Amino acid sequence: MYETLLAQMKKQLRQLDSWLIAAAGHATAKGFDSSVFLTQRLAPDQFAFARQVQVTCDTARLAASRLTGKEAPKHADTEQTLDELRARIASVLDWLDAITSDDLAGAGTRVVTQPRWEGKTMTGANYFVQHAVPNFYFHLSHAYAILRHNGVSIGKRDYLGPLTYD
Amino acid sequence: MYETLLAQMKKQLRQLDSWLIAAAGHATAKGFDSSVFLTQRLAPDQFAFARQVQVTCDTARLAASRLTGKEAPKHADTEQTLDELRARIASVLDWLDAITSDDLAGAGTRVVTQPRWEGKTMTGANYFVQHAVPNFYFHLSHAYAILRHNGVSIGKRDYLGPLTYD
Repeated sequence: MYETLLAQMKKQLRQLDSWLIAAAGHATAKGFDSSVFLTQRLAPDQFAFARQVQVTCDTARLAASRLTGKEAPKHADTEQTLDELRARIASVLDWLDAITSDDLAGAGTRVVTQPRWEGKTMTGANYFVQHAVPNFYFHLSHAYAILRHNGVSIGKRDYLGPLTYD
Repeated sequence: MYETLLAQMKKQLRQLDSWLIAAAGHATAKGFDSSVFLTQRLAPDQFAFARQVQVTCDTARLAASRLTGKEAPKHADTEQTLDELRARIASVLDWLDAITSDDLAGAGTRVVTQPRWEGKTMTGANYFVQHAVPNFYFHLSHAYAILRHNGVSIGKRDYLGPLTYD
């Protein structure tokens, strides 16, 4: 399950990268600075676009780290342009590419915690299914929705990416 | 994997139901007809709120049906109120509750197709991970985002629901 779902996260990150390319193209066609996208948000107390992309990356990165015990690359959250966000996605993809099946042995029974849980722990299995996967898709979908709300021409096929038919 | 992820879909549907309750409370507090939410959308060529909820339900319902071969209840897509959408969620939850581990035996190797694939097929495993789960969270997150965009006070804890700590 872990290998399959992490592979799917990688696929979705590649799709996210393609939306950033589409956003840049839209800005060029309309003649505005594409970095305007980074501060757009759907509600004043929701994350802006840049943060949605950062957290999508972080959720995949931290999930793989917590399920394997391998230290993940850190990012400074200082991206100011679509290209810088694309570099962050590429960095996470590079790191995820190096995770092997052996690394994921025992992932489901690892003890996972984070500061905001105030000492509580979850099994790797519960953490992954109840926290990492829902959060990943939450921020990914919000990134998509912010671009669609702002006129970028992407569709469901750009969200799902190529499907593996028999 | 199928049982775990379907259980998670059920949990997310219960959370979705709680957002509809919050939306109704927001409408009452502000003095507007809560059925206004059903036609809200984030982009003119995206689904409105009612359709996002319907498709979230359908994605879970059809996934369980395609992975088990059991016929799922059909819905007429005629909901006009939040309460009618809540009834749809309840109907899907009732049906999902009746899916057993035995029903899911061999889910990963089932042959899945749908009309828009024009004769192509996917394995149950590929369909579930590449299509059902991403679509489910896509429409769920869009339903959430539409409510947040329209001032409903829900947060990440309402999205994730209770976590299973050790």
